Amino acid sequence: MPYGYNGKILRVNLSDASIKTEEFDEAFYRTYMGGSGLIVYYLLKELKPKVDPLSPDNILIFASGALTGARVGGMCRYAVGAKSPLTGGFGESEAGGFWGPELKTAGFDAIVIEGKAEKPVYLYVKDGSAEVRDASHLWGKTTGETQEAIRNEVGDSRVRVAQIGPAGERMVRFACVTNNLKHFNGRNGLGAVMGSKNLKAVAVRGTKDVPAADPTTLSEIARRLAKAVQENPLAKGLYEWGTAAAVTGNNALGILPTKNFHYGEFEKAQNISAARMVDTILAAREGCFACPVRCKRVVRSEEHGIDPAYGGPEYETLAALGSLCMVDDLNAVALGNQICNQYTMDTISAGMVIAWAMECFEAGILTKSDTDGIELTFGNAQAMLQMLEKIGKREGFGDILAEGSVRAAQKVGRGSDKCVLAIKGQELPMHDPRGKYAVGLGYATCERGADHMVVGHDTMLNTESYSFVNTMPPMGVYSPTSATEYSPLKVRTFTYLSYWWSFFNEAGICQFVPVPRSAMPISDVLGALKAYTGWNTSLWEVMKAGERGITMARVFNLREGFSASDDKFPERLHQPLENGAMKGAFVPKEDLNKAIKLYYSMMGWDENGVPTEEKLLELGLDWLVQK
Amino acid sequence: MPYGYNGKILRVNLSDASIKTEEFDEAFYRTYMGGSGLIVYYLLKELKPKVDPLSPDNILIFASGALTGARVGGMCRYAVGAKSPLTGGFGESEAGGFWGPELKTAGFDAIVIEGKAEKPVYLYVKDGSAEVRDASHLWGKTTGETQEAIRNEVGDSRVRVAQIGPAGERMVRFACVTNNLKHFNGRNGLGAVMGSKNLKAVAVRGTKDVPAADPTTLSEIARRLAKAVQENPLAKGLYEWGTAAAVTGNNALGILPTKNFHYGEFEKAQNISAARMVDTILAAREGCFACPVRCKRVVRSEEHGIDPAYGGPEYETLAALGSLCMVDDLNAVALGNQICNQYTMDTISAGMVIAWAMECFEAGILTKSDTDGIELTFGNAQAMLQMLEKIGKREGFGDILAEGSVRAAQKVGRGSDKCVLAIKGQELPMHDPRGKYAVGLGYATCERGADHMVVGHDTMLNTESYSFVNTMPPMGVYSPTSATEYSPLKVRTFTYLSYWWSFFNEAGICQFVPVPRSAMPISDVLGALKAYTGWNTSLWEVMKAGERGITMARVFNLREGFSASDDKFPERLHQPLENGAMKGAFVPKEDLNKAIKLYYSMMGWDENGVPTEEKLLELGLDWLVQK
Repeated sequence: MPYGYNGKILRVNLSDASIKTEEFDEAFYRTYMGGSGLIVYYLLKELKPKVDPLSPDNILIFASGALTGARVGGMCRYAVGAKSPLTGGFGESEAGGFWGPELKTAGFDAIVIEGKAEKPVYLYVKDGSAEVRDASHLWGKTTGETQEAIRNEVGDSRVRVAQIGPAGERMVRFACVTNNLKHFNGRNGLGAVMGSKNLKAVAVRGTKDVPAADPTTLSEIARRLAKAVQENPLAKGLYEWGTAAAVTGNNALGILPTKNFHYGEFEKAQNISAARMVDTILAAREGCFACPVRCKRVVRSEEHGIDPAYGGPEYETLAALGSLCMVDDLNAVALGNQICNQYTMDTISAGMVIAWAMECFEAGILTKSDTDGIELTFGNAQAMLQMLEKIGKREGFGDILAEGSVRAAQKVGRGSDKCVLAIKGQELPMHDPRGKYAVGLGYATCERGADHMVVGHDTMLNTESYSFVNTMPPMGVYSPTSATEYSPLKVRTFTYLSYWWSFFNEAGICQFVPVPRSAMPISDVLGALKAYTGWNTSLWEVMKAGERGITMARVFNLREGFSASDDKFPERLHQPLENGAMKGAFVPKEDLNKAIKLYYSMMGWDENGVPTEEKLLELGLDWLVQK
Repeated sequence: MPYGYNGKILRVNLSDASIKTEEFDEAFYRTYMGGSGLIVYYLLKELKPKVDPLSPDNILIFASGALTGARVGGMCRYAVGAKSPLTGGFGESEAGGFWGPELKTAGFDAIVIEGKAEKPVYLYVKDGSAEVRDASHLWGKTTGETQEAIRNEVGDSRVRVAQIGPAGERMVRFACVTNNLKHFNGRNGLGAVMGSKNLKAVAVRGTKDVPAADPTTLSEIARRLAKAVQENPLAKGLYEWGTAAAVTGNNALGILPTKNFHYGEFEKAQNISAARMVDTILAAREGCFACPVRCKRVVRSEEHGIDPAYGGPEYETLAALGSLCMVDDLNAVALGNQICNQYTMDTISAGMVIAWAMECFEAGILTKSDTDGIELTFGNAQAMLQMLEKIGKREGFGDILAEGSVRAAQKVGRGSDKCVLAIKGQELPMHDPRGKYAVGLGYATCERGADHMVVGHDTMLNTESYSFVNTMPPMGVYSPTSATEYSPLKVRTFTYLSYWWSFFNEAGICQFVPVPRSAMPISDVLGALKAYTGWNTSLWEVMKAGERGITMARVFNLREGFSASDDKFPERLHQPLENGAMKGAFVPKEDLNKAIKLYYSMMGWDENGVPTEEKLLELGLDWLVQK
């Protein structure tokens, strides 16, 4: 019996409701680590090339990571993956909460789901066994209703439910997966894949702890982190203000996405700020499994119909439904967040597709005859909320927006594609590369499309900072770089950090709690992995595992038809910001392209971004070498 | 004041006896680590391209490593480097003993020596100051005489003397440097560089310990190692038998170099074995600074003129002067060892050049008219000893042999080059690649020429073994490979281990005491580095430092005119072994060439073995990119 994981993966074929278990050894787990690494392993190994992501041929994977469930702050995450219906490439998205740890105590490290159920079903996993159950009566229900119904049905209020709402059922291409109503595998439209398989939910319950190899050391690390969190300014800020703190922070820096990325400053940012939330609708601060930071928000307002069961908006949501659409009504943003949650829609893509429509509307490309009579102008909070409902229901103009901004622009035509800000089909998150070049390099090269869970924030840290000191020298980088340069050192820093962050997504580690964002040195992250699994691991091993995951995702996307020409910015990022502290700033295209080429080479990829045979062999991926 | 090092490098120009000190910060030390890394840094930065290695233009560096002087077994080594007069390329060789730790307590981490003294001098370094002293009266003296004279002169019997004997003075191209008469920077002819500069010795004495950042942890690691050594079979064997144990070990495997690499088995191996040494001339077992293993031998025989002051023969010497020349007289081999020591000649190259001459003699290429009348046949112990004396004095035929086997064969002509076993001008050590493919890949690609201090022995370890378990999984390699294959996994394992071993040569770590050879896990090596220096280091950082060192050496050799065509075996290794357990075994040339190309690519070098610009940037070597 291994420590820290089960060595067992549950396999479910929905077409015939068959269930089996697959087992792997330690070397397998160390090679792929879990999470995004395990997902890309299955996609490459088992998914037929070029299948329709919304067909029964797609494979859907729920995967915990090597550290998921370790009783240390931040070690709670799991990933959902499939071929993405939004991008057509590698689809993968992580979430925190309690579902991941619960899966492990339920006896499995991951669930691989194939086929399509004839009628709606949900999967119920408990203590080593699994069952496909009818969900016809749940179809069409919101997430809150569904969770309650399942908990009643199985007679266990502690069952953890990962699920889709109506947007997932209707295959909105940016439908997300939610667990406990408050945590989201937000991006890449993985909720639509659940919907395409008639899979309403995956409910898990486990009562047997996965033993740690060295519980004493693990506890020491957890205690050390808990103590550090009390003193660490970033961690304290995350508790006090949540990620919402970034609204005014980015606004002051001039990089708060506003008016569909025309602006970097939103003059009414204070109205949707963390401070405003604390002063008005904040009802509670919550955390994920074993976490001392507790950055999650719970908001409530009976007057505005805001239900605390659905948590509260993160920074990404505040910006996407707020500043990006120039909406300064915090209640409306919170309500929009709740609608997205109930329907399971990614708030980033939802805000982005609405902002796209607003820009088109103001430019006269769209008119009320397109928008079901709605005055879709920037700043119109009610229009934003109406559109969210329409997308969730695929009703009227919402049915077009439900396809995501790239496809919506194709349908609309009339030059509306100029207003789209997406990479590889996925809408940009709420970080503007014009002020964060490393983030931009991450957006451009990430196999999941523009995604902020890839890398970059740290490269601009000051040498004196805790994060820099605890992260970069152990990686062999001793000098910081400016946020707005593509120097060789910046690309090198980016490349190394991309391995580290990829490892985080493989191991199920939150980016806020440990380094590089907060209060845990690299040595304690590795110490926790060792204490949990018993592996005599090292930074080298996990960096290589991270690199392996990135490279496998690249191989997958190449197989699906992507090429170097997809690693690029939407044109607007090469154009000047129109207001704010960074007014006039833009990313020169040639600088980006040079950085991308340098990154390819540092990755051991050729000038077309194709991993060399030798790089695959160096990563132990002999099975991916094409003969 | 830093921990674990001084931050100061002593610079001496012998041409005008000027002395100064250079200071570097932590980032510099972490980037280059010391030892071989510091040496190649100076050679690339300051040595003019294509200088004659024996001219005053050459630069000679004595460099301790990042761990040298830490009070933990195995952390005692230092390196001497220069452009090699034997190979014409990167010259570097490490030694154990006490000289390296003494240099650090004397206030310097390294000494960089330029120019040439008008007449013989020695350098005396004590507690932060240095002095160039006259050595005219020492010129011509043996090492034993010189050490005694210097100690008397400075009135300190504890002064540590690194020096050359008459072979170094006469610029024998494989002259070595010795310290304390028992430890050798053996290879690459660095003693000849000392001779060319009229530098007889570097005597150091320090009384101020370099403080460790965390002495308690360092002591714990030292104690843990000392305890492990008691139980570790390899460490116990090293104490009991010394490296000499490999004589019968390799003989049984059929890879004991015999008869100039025609044979893999020497029928009289028992006569020069460790057991025979223990039974006859072994007088004591000694160790290096702080070492609990104590693998060094001291031999004594008044009857045979064997002086215990000169230590005793290692495996390399027993094989090179013994089986290779088919000499089975242990006393003769021990005496040969002593002659090499007194004159400062590398025993490997000395044995190899004599074996070359013996093969030529037996083939009729050489006759007594060439060899000063000596019957230079295999097995002739007296002829071997006579030749050693002649080489040391550059007398008669010895003057030709003193040039090394490649140049000697050029002078002799008559097809004698077919009997040469050298790579990049340096003679093969006593490990036969036909039974150790990884060692062969190391020989072929090492910038120092054929050198056994590069990599390889571990790749053939069994998964169950302590060394494999403690070394390879933390490097992300989970399966062992056979000793006689060039699979992708083998090349990958080799590549990763080459970084690790390169780090050892940079940090001043012995290859016997810690992993991968004996009783110390990687975590304790890194823990010792952290406890000594205070650096929050990682396996990633030190592996990258190791890779950086290898890559810099490659850049240096390319600058000096080497190319991929120099990465090859002498023909004999592609021919079958003629006897023993591996009779008939050979390394297929195409397999080697394929492995070399794969290694290049894994290193980030192009198909010509040239590091790409992007690899240099990835290693932070922007200053080596040619514009």
